[in-house]
Amino acid sequence: MGHVALGMGRPRSPAYDPAVCYESARVIVGPFLLYIGRIANPLDIKTSRGMAVFRREDCVGEFRHDDGPLTLGLPRFDFAEAVAAGARTLILGVAAAGGRMDATMIADVVAALDAGLDVAAGLHQRLRDAPAIAAAAQAGGRKLYDVRDPAAPPQVGTGQPRAGRRLLTVGTDCAVGKMYTALHLTAGLRSRGVAADFRATGQTGIMIAGAGVPIDAVVADFLSGAVEWLSPARHDNGWDVIEGQGSLFHPSFAGVSTGLLHGAQPDAVVLCHDPLRTHLRGLPHMPVPDIVMCLDRNLAVARLTNPMVQAVGVSLNTARMAAPDALALCGAIADRTGLPCVDPVTTGVAPILDRLSARAIAA
Amino acid sequence: MGHVALGMGRPRSPAYDPAVCYESARVIVGPFLLYIGRIANPLDIKTSRGMAVFRREDCVGEFRHDDGPLTLGLPRFDFAEAVAAGARTLILGVAAAGGRMDATMIADVVAALDAGLDVAAGLHQRLRDAPAIAAAAQAGGRKLYDVRDPAAPPQVGTGQPRAGRRLLTVGTDCAVGKMYTALHLTAGLRSRGVAADFRATGQTGIMIAGAGVPIDAVVADFLSGAVEWLSPARHDNGWDVIEGQGSLFHPSFAGVSTGLLHGAQPDAVVLCHDPLRTHLRGLPHMPVPDIVMCLDRNLAVARLTNPMVQAVGVSLNTARMAAPDALALCGAIADRTGLPCVDPVTTGVAPILDRLSARAIAA
Repeated sequence: MGHVALGMGRPRSPAYDPAVCYESARVIVGPFLLYIGRIANPLDIKTSRGMAVFRREDCVGEFRHDDGPLTLGLPRFDFAEAVAAGARTLILGVAAAGGRMDATMIADVVAALDAGLDVAAGLHQRLRDAPAIAAAAQAGGRKLYDVRDPAAPPQVGTGQPRAGRRLLTVGTDCAVGKMYTALHLTAGLRSRGVAADFRATGQTGIMIAGAGVPIDAVVADFLSGAVEWLSPARHDNGWDVIEGQGSLFHPSFAGVSTGLLHGAQPDAVVLCHDPLRTHLRGLPHMPVPDIVMCLDRNLAVARLTNPMVQAVGVSLNTARMAAPDALALCGAIADRTGLPCVDPVTTGVAPILDRLSARAIAA
Repeated sequence: MGHVALGMGRPRSPAYDPAVCYESARVIVGPFLLYIGRIANPLDIKTSRGMAVFRREDCVGEFRHDDGPLTLGLPRFDFAEAVAAGARTLILGVAAAGGRMDATMIADVVAALDAGLDVAAGLHQRLRDAPAIAAAAQAGGRKLYDVRDPAAPPQVGTGQPRAGRRLLTVGTDCAVGKMYTALHLTAGLRSRGVAADFRATGQTGIMIAGAGVPIDAVVADFLSGAVEWLSPARHDNGWDVIEGQGSLFHPSFAGVSTGLLHGAQPDAVVLCHDPLRTHLRGLPHMPVPDIVMCLDRNLAVARLTNPMVQAVGVSLNTARMAAPDALALCGAIADRTGLPCVDPVTTGVAPILDRLSARAIAA
């Protein structure tokens, strides 16, 4: 069960096979127990939530403390119960800014290892670098998966045009749905019989897909080169759907977003946006950019390596809006941008896929 | 002699003191022997050349093989002769794309260590990671300086406005004079009695200044944060002159350039350009961008963290042009851009400094 299936539950196209594409692909062995602990900010458990949504069939339950306010709606287990229920690996699916474990997390990971679970995490602070964790893993013969170790070789990008079609999700901010949108687009293309592969660039996407490059952990000199490696030439008339990161207008991460745009050489971009976000994530002094300006800048940057790049849609996260308001907003944005505007979760991505076909973006 | 002096030979202002500003500043002990080996491309010995130009008084000579076509015009020594002449450290001042040592370089470094020299390098491949080098250093009790180890702590940038004035050199391409221009501007400001500090972001600049952050070796998530750390708030009405890297229009390195722009929050930018460059370095299929378009894009990106940013000059490398042609070109570019246009080496940077004063960029 579960340790190689792509999250979307559809057969992967040949180009996706990690054994072919990824020299050092990791296969994290399920079933999984998803960590919540006592984390209070929903954004900070996005990896655990992503696994619950896109790998639901491989997750036995969740681990949370009595005073933890969040739940993924899965059965609650302690570590021994999870092992008894068949769990093989604890997914430490947390993403705090700075990427370090606190004392609670370290103690929990040690307890999980002692109970017989392997542990996977995607933090900047590697599991193996916490002495208590390394010791517990060694003592019990347990595996530690540090998903943020870049799998890509250290190579500079070339900007050299390559075969195949690529779509990149970009955003007005961090955590606005770039991964969700990319996964839904991948599934939608496959459901129409088009070969398509999700190319993961963040810890959550990598855990869901089972392979990828944690692009924000790559040495800066090799940013675009890592994306060229992640999404190599393809000759099957299919699409690579590449998960975007950050935003050109986020002062902490725009360098990453720029390297991604240049390495991806996208034929198509989809702009992702959270309409209720009042300021950039973590930066109360920075406004969210206007979507038209943001799209224009993304296209201007992308043209350096693919002059034919087109915007093909806008993707909103309307989870916290009333349905009529969300629909009205999608309509207004579609009118303003001339692009299909969807919420992948509530309305699906069909209008964007229609635009992709209608524009007949060349292979 | 020589192990803390700033290359420009002027007293450093208080904010520059590495012991104050750089927790893990390295002080590479001179006098120096500069490595050329048998490298044939002048661009690939830019670090050795930078030391010969800006730290001349601290260099005893150069090391090159009989079949090496390049020279820095310094006395030629073998390693034993260099030690006898007082050299303490071999500067492996080479910068090959990919950043790895070949077999010749490794053998030369081992011979230098055996002869009693310490060795400093700034390559992606660390000296300590070459087993023969590590063994020779250990056997002889010699020091290895790996300048490309980032000194900055792993922290994300905030984009939060900070006190002080900052000038960043940007470029149409790699290796077009961003470091030279920054060093000349720093010296020029000091000669006018203005406090100014050169903030190094590349291996050559770091070796010249004795401190800095090799920005292309920083993990991508921390790019702008590293620049915020390198050039912290200052309150003495002086300038930080920050060495730029890459180009927004170079598909290999634009991510680095973007992070630098956002982290630097420059009040002023100077665009550096090589008028004889026919294509981007290393990429025959990519043209050099137009200077006006390049300046406009740099200003657009920089405005995210400093809406008041101004362009204050254009800096050309006219070393391979006839003097009348160079002067005519500077005039034409000045007319077209409305900015002073200089070659720092041949004409000096006074017109740019005048523009800085005239515009009275606020502290």
